[in-house]
Amino acid sequence: MIDLDLIGIGTGNPEHLTLAAIRAMNEADLILLPRKGDAKSDLLDLRRMICGTVLTGSTRIAEFDLPERDADAAYLEAVDDWHREIAGVWAREIEAYLPQGGRLALLVWGDPSLYDSSLRIAERLLAAGVALNVRVVPGITSIQALTAAHGITLNTLAAPVTITTGRRLRREGWPAGSDTLVVMLDAACAFETLPGQDIHIWWGAYLGMPQECLIAGALDEVAGEIVRRRAALRAENGWIMDVYLLRRAAK
Amino acid sequence: MIDLDLIGIGTGNPEHLTLAAIRAMNEADLILLPRKGDAKSDLLDLRRMICGTVLTGSTRIAEFDLPERDADAAYLEAVDDWHREIAGVWAREIEAYLPQGGRLALLVWGDPSLYDSSLRIAERLLAAGVALNVRVVPGITSIQALTAAHGITLNTLAAPVTITTGRRLRREGWPAGSDTLVVMLDAACAFETLPGQDIHIWWGAYLGMPQECLIAGALDEVAGEIVRRRAALRAENGWIMDVYLLRRAAK
Repeated sequence: MIDLDLIGIGTGNPEHLTLAAIRAMNEADLILLPRKGDAKSDLLDLRRMICGTVLTGSTRIAEFDLPERDADAAYLEAVDDWHREIAGVWAREIEAYLPQGGRLALLVWGDPSLYDSSLRIAERLLAAGVALNVRVVPGITSIQALTAAHGITLNTLAAPVTITTGRRLRREGWPAGSDTLVVMLDAACAFETLPGQDIHIWWGAYLGMPQECLIAGALDEVAGEIVRRRAALRAENGWIMDVYLLRRAAK
Repeated sequence: MIDLDLIGIGTGNPEHLTLAAIRAMNEADLILLPRKGDAKSDLLDLRRMICGTVLTGSTRIAEFDLPERDADAAYLEAVDDWHREIAGVWAREIEAYLPQGGRLALLVWGDPSLYDSSLRIAERLLAAGVALNVRVVPGITSIQALTAAHGITLNTLAAPVTITTGRRLRREGWPAGSDTLVVMLDAACAFETLPGQDIHIWWGAYLGMPQECLIAGALDEVAGEIVRRRAALRAENGWIMDVYLLRRAAK
């Protein structure tokens, strides 16, 4: 039997770690760290640093190469293939390092519930007959890191909020029902599709990290600046992770 | 000048505290703890216990009586009056304890961005001319505590999520645009208004606390059990805080 802990570690500030996350890391026999290629080595370095800082016992650390998603295939199909490949890698690592069972931990950026694959990959292993006992340790999401950095609330008084993706915002426009929208996984600046609508934006990249960058203002006034800054930061760092909140006047 | 730290402390599990929250608590000159009447003394006890556990220096602690909201008045008007009263209490406490300025911290259940009044009350003080420098320290929300406890994702693959209130769900029904709904602040079991719609519910109360209670299943099958259990727990504890996630089959 493998006890699998999916541990949310927040968004890059080592002080986002909760006491529960630190405890779970130290209870693990093995922590698996994904290598995502040179461009994102910052993220591997950060996970290594976190392990170096908080581990006090005999927890082993192993690194594995994360398969790359096929960027040319249809999105959902590519994600499905990618999850299957990652599940295969996890299974091999478990076989190699914990053949007699034990406690395995994965450090998940943000929180394992929010636009993260780990729970889906664990479900594949379960479906394939791997004896897994999954536990989730919640972590600070990029949404909370964003609202905290800007000092704003997520919702307006008693009002709803919708969380969506850049892909969906571009395809479907502003969703019905909420005047506050959080947009994640937006590699193509879908906010540019919303001019002239009296929308305010709060944008943040590398939240919690030394290179954190924040821009806020009327969307029509700052959209161009965000697009330019995002491209420059991405070129400079080799990668970018960002998120934004849009709020329009209540109808 | 008052440095005001609004510190998210998670949902009742002292191990939800982040390292940043612990640092901010120790940097404070004064932590104000709200007394909410006997029925919710558990919550005051928990904050006291957290302070007792993590404070290592000279931080002072003061308790104040939180005004009660007028339950008979119209909702938004009652909230407005209530926020004004609380702002008055904060101003008096600041005058009493930090007349020369200093660093004041408030411990916010969950995260200060999500259905919490602290940022709005701070804005009132700013508008009234109090020299405040507000900093937010993010915390684990009840939404993450809920998904972690049930071991589920918040969103389905690449799909949106809407967060709303029980009051709004009851009044407006299932909002357009999302097949996943998180419902907060629901004192009246608004999920009972959604029978026969092939919806799954994951419900949790006292998340992270010793009395944590979880129920999940097809809504039509478990709704009655949740209503009964909720009433019994509320009677037993004198208060209840709960949250739930609803998911319907994608249209």
